[in-house]
Amino acid sequence: MACGKIAIVGSGAVGLYYGGMLAASGCDVHFLLRSDYEWVKRRGVCLLLPGRELTVHPVPAHRTPESIGPVDLVIVALKTTANDALPDLLGPLLQEGTAVLTLQNGLGNEAFLARHVGAGRVMGGLCFICLNRVGPGTVRNYFPGNLTLGEYRGGPGERIAALVAAFREAGIDCRVAADLNETRWRKLVWNVPFNGLTIAAGGIDTERLLASPGMTGEIAALMHEVRAIAGAAGVVIEEEFLRRQIEITRPMGPYRPSSLIDFMDKRPVEIESIWEAPLREAERLGVSAPRLRLLHAVLRALC
Amino acid sequence: MACGKIAIVGSGAVGLYYGGMLAASGCDVHFLLRSDYEWVKRRGVCLLLPGRELTVHPVPAHRTPESIGPVDLVIVALKTTANDALPDLLGPLLQEGTAVLTLQNGLGNEAFLARHVGAGRVMGGLCFICLNRVGPGTVRNYFPGNLTLGEYRGGPGERIAALVAAFREAGIDCRVAADLNETRWRKLVWNVPFNGLTIAAGGIDTERLLASPGMTGEIAALMHEVRAIAGAAGVVIEEEFLRRQIEITRPMGPYRPSSLIDFMDKRPVEIESIWEAPLREAERLGVSAPRLRLLHAVLRALC
Repeated sequence: MACGKIAIVGSGAVGLYYGGMLAASGCDVHFLLRSDYEWVKRRGVCLLLPGRELTVHPVPAHRTPESIGPVDLVIVALKTTANDALPDLLGPLLQEGTAVLTLQNGLGNEAFLARHVGAGRVMGGLCFICLNRVGPGTVRNYFPGNLTLGEYRGGPGERIAALVAAFREAGIDCRVAADLNETRWRKLVWNVPFNGLTIAAGGIDTERLLASPGMTGEIAALMHEVRAIAGAAGVVIEEEFLRRQIEITRPMGPYRPSSLIDFMDKRPVEIESIWEAPLREAERLGVSAPRLRLLHAVLRALC
Repeated sequence: MACGKIAIVGSGAVGLYYGGMLAASGCDVHFLLRSDYEWVKRRGVCLLLPGRELTVHPVPAHRTPESIGPVDLVIVALKTTANDALPDLLGPLLQEGTAVLTLQNGLGNEAFLARHVGAGRVMGGLCFICLNRVGPGTVRNYFPGNLTLGEYRGGPGERIAALVAAFREAGIDCRVAADLNETRWRKLVWNVPFNGLTIAAGGIDTERLLASPGMTGEIAALMHEVRAIAGAAGVVIEEEFLRRQIEITRPMGPYRPSSLIDFMDKRPVEIESIWEAPLREAERLGVSAPRLRLLHAVLRALC
């Protein structure tokens, strides 16, 4: 297999899903686990896909990165709220040529990794997908969506091509990002309003949020603020894209974004990477973002 | 007594407090009560003032406006969410010359009353005060503040002067508003951010709200939006007034505004008069109010 030995760091919904899909297609995937260790060791990874169940068992389950040892690819799917722990977790996994792919939410994740492992190793991926961890080692996928990968520095090359091929072989709609930064901003267009307002509106799902025309107007207005900040940062997002984000969310039904689930389960919410990083960009670039600012203050108080 | 026979319609914190103070000073005050009827009948009205307790007993307690009959002055302290019931409650209280004073929150209350009882009867009052109903017939006053009264139509005359004198005799710092509309907008400068954000931030008091510099910035920004709408409506509010609103709130300590208490007790919140009416003014006048708009949508979802 083109990807060699793979470590999944952060085995929540995203890590279990992508790691599980790759493992099911024959990749050598090692999961770094905490609370789910015993379950995954005994029963494997269980993916509830639209229309079918996929159980991958046995899979190599580990409690420490030392137990995994050096790998060819690390897939980082840790919550950004746990980034402080990341450098220590990565150390034992690195060897010459180890690539590190972050699938984390928000802005600033590649730069953070680059500071700790060197920019040359770093790739980023954006998951446009609806996943919820529904039990130990078990993830439900509501909406397959797609995965878009890119290099942190420079354009896509052979390394990205091989990775995209591996994900596609695993049945994932995987694409190459011409510009990873642009892709991140496009994902923020969705995450900023939906992850934020489902929390601020009292823990309601996207369907209930969109049931109110007033709230839908505010979602669109927040998207426009994100678009304006992206624009000032040199990333052009067409108006049509914003409208489509609301359209694709309606058929998702009563979906609860990851931040809402973290909030309801009393886990830390990724405020820094999803709302604060874009807000800092707005300040740096002199862009007005009143709604983002108010939403951020409310989330800070709530979470 | 200059005020003659007085009826209190809406015997919550505001109605019990002002009615109780007037009754204690010898005015003929009749309370229209629902849930507190038995308690007030048996034990009177209990006011927990800063440093002293004041119990007014016996006081005329009534279950219906018919039982009160025609009066010289009606003081309306009903929640604006119950305004639909108001015309029927007022009917039996009116005779020639009956004045109607609304102490309700937000915009539009005088106009509403004017449509039902005729503009000539209507006066308005703004209570800058911290009151919480802490039990049946019992109100705690945290911050005495002041009461500002004005005519709905025309400038202050003899009727207002007599009323101000009665309130002052009752120990209330009562003032005459040169322009009632201006006074209403000044009160909204406080109510819009504090009543709204204490709810949106998860049910926290004003002290916890002001503990965050980011949140304090958003409070100030919301105040500026209200000021801009007022300005477009011809009401000039000086910048200094906004800063002072935050300053006077700090010593109030862990205060819970009335809307927060309504929200936490699962009662209707006065969204229409506090947030929606100013928002409609913003739309009518073409003033941008992005934070007010977002806050309103969140409150609509929460309440």
